[in-house]
Amino acid sequence: MIIDCHGHYTTAPKALEEFRKRQLDGLKNSAVSPATSSPAISDDQLRESVEGAQLKLQRERGTDLTIFSPRAGGMGHHLGNAATSQQWSEICNDLIHRICTLYPQNFVGVCQLPQSPGVAPQNCIAELERCVKELGFIGCNLNPDPSGGYWTDPPLTDRWWYPLYEKMVELEVPAMVHVSMSCNPNFHFTGAHYINADTTAFMQFVTSDLFRDFPTLKFIIPHGGGAVPYHWGRYRGLAQDMKRPPLAELLLHNVFFDTCVYHQPGIDLLLKVIPAENILFASEMVGAVRGIDPETGCFYDDTKRYIDAIEWLPAADREKIFRGNAGKVYGRLKR
Amino acid sequence: MIIDCHGHYTTAPKALEEFRKRQLDGLKNSAVSPATSSPAISDDQLRESVEGAQLKLQRERGTDLTIFSPRAGGMGHHLGNAATSQQWSEICNDLIHRICTLYPQNFVGVCQLPQSPGVAPQNCIAELERCVKELGFIGCNLNPDPSGGYWTDPPLTDRWWYPLYEKMVELEVPAMVHVSMSCNPNFHFTGAHYINADTTAFMQFVTSDLFRDFPTLKFIIPHGGGAVPYHWGRYRGLAQDMKRPPLAELLLHNVFFDTCVYHQPGIDLLLKVIPAENILFASEMVGAVRGIDPETGCFYDDTKRYIDAIEWLPAADREKIFRGNAGKVYGRLKR
Repeated sequence: MIIDCHGHYTTAPKALEEFRKRQLDGLKNSAVSPATSSPAISDDQLRESVEGAQLKLQRERGTDLTIFSPRAGGMGHHLGNAATSQQWSEICNDLIHRICTLYPQNFVGVCQLPQSPGVAPQNCIAELERCVKELGFIGCNLNPDPSGGYWTDPPLTDRWWYPLYEKMVELEVPAMVHVSMSCNPNFHFTGAHYINADTTAFMQFVTSDLFRDFPTLKFIIPHGGGAVPYHWGRYRGLAQDMKRPPLAELLLHNVFFDTCVYHQPGIDLLLKVIPAENILFASEMVGAVRGIDPETGCFYDDTKRYIDAIEWLPAADREKIFRGNAGKVYGRLKR
Repeated sequence: MIIDCHGHYTTAPKALEEFRKRQLDGLKNSAVSPATSSPAISDDQLRESVEGAQLKLQRERGTDLTIFSPRAGGMGHHLGNAATSQQWSEICNDLIHRICTLYPQNFVGVCQLPQSPGVAPQNCIAELERCVKELGFIGCNLNPDPSGGYWTDPPLTDRWWYPLYEKMVELEVPAMVHVSMSCNPNFHFTGAHYINADTTAFMQFVTSDLFRDFPTLKFIIPHGGGAVPYHWGRYRGLAQDMKRPPLAELLLHNVFFDTCVYHQPGIDLLLKVIPAENILFASEMVGAVRGIDPETGCFYDDTKRYIDAIEWLPAADREKIFRGNAGKVYGRLKR
């Protein structure tokens, strides 16, 4: 069985987007009342939205189970206020739950959190608990920058976040560190903001004692860990200069990288540099890059091919990356 | 001859730091008058500051000429105002000039610009012109985020920057895209802010027609291009999805990467993925990482060793990376 730990529901029916537009319009214009009920989407529409996309790609590429969450770019935590994010998160998470119920062999849920800039993360606990306990979700996406590119909230290692971490530990769910859309014109969202956030979070972890306070807290850094594996020597050296413990000891019990890196040399480096225990297979499909690479004739984001092509990878490591590590990081996956 | 295109004067005598402190204190406290004269630093003190550091490392590592600029973390464009930055830049650039005059075989100058958040880059032209025409400098460091981690100025591709680019083209000098200290607690400066800025600038270039407007404008993206080479497939795919020209055509006549990547697998990837024409040797010494890698017994930032170790690299490419490309990118280097 091959588990893809990073899939977003980027193909939701148009009614979802229309709901969101009405919701945000309602904030701007008091003449338009904010939407209060879920968008009307039938099971058939849900099936249709994934049959020709995520499910088709699973079959074609030979993957089995996708750990599935709402569209990351769509979370838009910087839009509206805490109530806006609460309503929007519930609706997006409920749709993920319906997809997982329709296709229990193919999808397992991870939730979006109702974050809002300047609002304490404690505010996300109820929705996390609902998603895990009532909807059977196994993790959450945690946005390290709810401002959408201005980075005005405290670092992930600040006590600001601790109440949420306490709940994550209690529920035995990890978080994927994942920003949303950028409203800062400096940052292209999938090309800069996503990758920067990955790199930023890692360096926050390097400089803190977060995992001394939460020895079982787990984070997945997506997009192959941002810039981190490419600069692994830099990070080892920075930790050493700062008299921090070696990275393996400091954070590799708690921090994991996915394989959303869209070319062979990048995947080669990732698997060479980062211990196999810390790598989880993922493709981000249907996601940031949707085209076919003219150099290979294959989809850029068909990351399984790159891993399959690495002949020196021991079978035991391959098994960990494709399946075993997901079972360890997502503690509720086995249930 | 081996040219290191990325060296900072991180070892300046203490008097420089003391001057800066007085300058900034003067802004805060009207009882302390702002410093108005240069710090008193003798030629002997300058010699001493580099003899045991940059010059010693050049000799030990077998490099010849360092393209040398003020300490990047010290630029602090977010501190004070435009007048503060003007005075501070002049003083830092003058010191670089004195070092280059003392050791004309070992150092050639690149200037810090008197940027300030919200102040038009046009304001930097006079200092750039002074450094190039009077001090013989061959390039500048351009900070894409003078706010120090809040990214409040327009992207590098905005017309906001065009007057400065016109002058750069006229003077035939490139810019290294280099942020300074981060005052945003989310971003560790050398571990996140530097790398993020590199990645961010590259993606700004991908999404713009800047190089149609300035076909001979040249940028060096330091720290091995941030996350870019590791995610080269992602960037090729994003450009393709956006119907942009292939990256080689879009920006590889204008954008170059240095080799400040501090482990063998990272350098291997850089040289495998990016055409040799677009790579300039650099070590960032004495810079971000100063320790010895216990895995190799060598300095992390002794990047020449990593390049020397790549047996498959053709001699002609090696020559380009170590010397030839610097001559092409820094048009005034030959003078």
